[in-house]
Amino acid sequence: MTTSNDSLARLHAVIESRKGADPEQSYVARLLHKGPDAFLKKIGEEATEVVMAAKDGDARKLVDEVADLWFHSMVALAYYGVSPADVIAELERREGTSGIEEKALRKAQQREGGAP
Amino acid sequence: MTTSNDSLARLHAVIESRKGADPEQSYVARLLHKGPDAFLKKIGEEATEVVMAAKDGDARKLVDEVADLWFHSMVALAYYGVSPADVIAELERREGTSGIEEKALRKAQQREGGAP
Amino acid sequence: MTTSNDSLARLHAVIESRKGADPEQSYVARLLHKGPDAFLKKIGEEATEVVMAAKDGDARKLVDEVADLWFHSMVALAYYGVSPADVIAELERREGTSGIEEKALRKAQQREGGAP
Amino acid sequence: MTTSNDSLARLHAVIESRKGADPEQSYVARLLHKGPDAFLKKIGEEATEVVMAAKDGDARKLVDEVADLWFHSMVALAYYGVSPADVIAELERREGTSGIEEKALRKAQQREGGAP
Repeated sequence: MTTSNDSLARLHAVIESRKGADPEQSYVARLLHKGPDAFLKKIGEEATEVVMAAKDGDARKLVDEVADLWFHSMVALAYYGVSPADVIAELERREGTSGIEEKALRKAQQREGGAP
Repeated sequence: MTTSNDSLARLHAVIESRKGADPEQSYVARLLHKGPDAFLKKIGEEATEVVMAAKDGDARKLVDEVADLWFHSMVALAYYGVSPADVIAELERREGTSGIEEKALRKAQQREGGAP
Repeated sequence: MTTSNDSLARLHAVIESRKGADPEQSYVARLLHKGPDAFLKKIGEEATEVVMAAKDGDARKLVDEVADLWFHSMVALAYYGVSPADVIAELERREGTSGIEEKALRKAQQREGGAP
Repeated sequence: MTTSNDSLARLHAVIESRKGADPEQSYVARLLHKGPDAFLKKIGEEATEVVMAAKDGDARKLVDEVADLWFHSMVALAYYGVSPADVIAELERREGTSGIEEKALRKAQQREGGAP
């Protein structure tokens, strides 16, 4: 059976395989070839589209835009030599750290001036 | 079906379990309770932090910020009744669609003034 | 002599004059015709480009990108029936309100957990 | 030359005067002291809040959020040694350049696959 971890690993491998490929033949090769500003700009753009889809309450569009956002995040990860597995590991580490949510909560409460 | 090693599915279940939980006890419950603007704002903020970590060439920080970005995306997905599995399915659909990258490429070429 | 206020008012008048104009003849008419998502997306994109220009320490590019960001903000203002004069008035109101910076400061200090 | 009714020039002077001031006494001094990431993060955050206010169709909130966005842009301008006057000059240059809108328009048409 295929897990999310497997799917992201496979997509990461596809992105990795585009490094040095012909920019005229592949969208990812083109982004990697043009350098960071090209894909970072897309991250800012897609984050805004996620926000707009959510404000529209359009769940299907939200899924599409989050896919775009995660995809371009993965191009950035590959460019800098890290991977979605590293991101998953970080998310698991936080989940595993007892009290992690409580820490974020205390910080959020302070931010709003609420008594701890 | 969700397997035990499907990290995003497990994290999604944790987020789902926070719906209706005490906002004073959980960061996620607090975000969900405050409503969309609270977590959508975080998506814009974290996307910017991804861009800054990348511009610094700091791969470790990039992983941390992408984890933050994906995490808050997952809060949005849960709020609107969809899931990371839907995002993964969309990414796989695109990967599986022959010619999908070529289509994105043609669009990008047009955008830059390349002949159609 | 021309002030910033005058310049922004004149640019606002130009944008206003594009409402209902032929989308094939004017970039602003086209944005207004396509509706909010078209120019809001640009605001997210240009904000990211401001961040990237700043991280590059490129002051000339920063000016260009802030110009793009403010320009598309002004399209949004016009679309919703408000103007840069309203923004200027709000900025002046804050400046005039004694203690406004101190309030922002206290909030920032709390956010970081520093004692007031 | 700056006239007494040039609001942005006056606000710029206030921001400039905070360079090197006590970070404990002034919000702007604090942002400048903490360095670029502090105010650039705010630009990403405020741009998202502009988008959300617009999607809500809340013109008053839009004015407030655009004021926040422009204010933090001005902190960035000051940090890098440029000013709102430079931004206004760039906006005027574009407005004055005959055909500038037509150029943006042609680019936008190409982007959407329209014939060049």
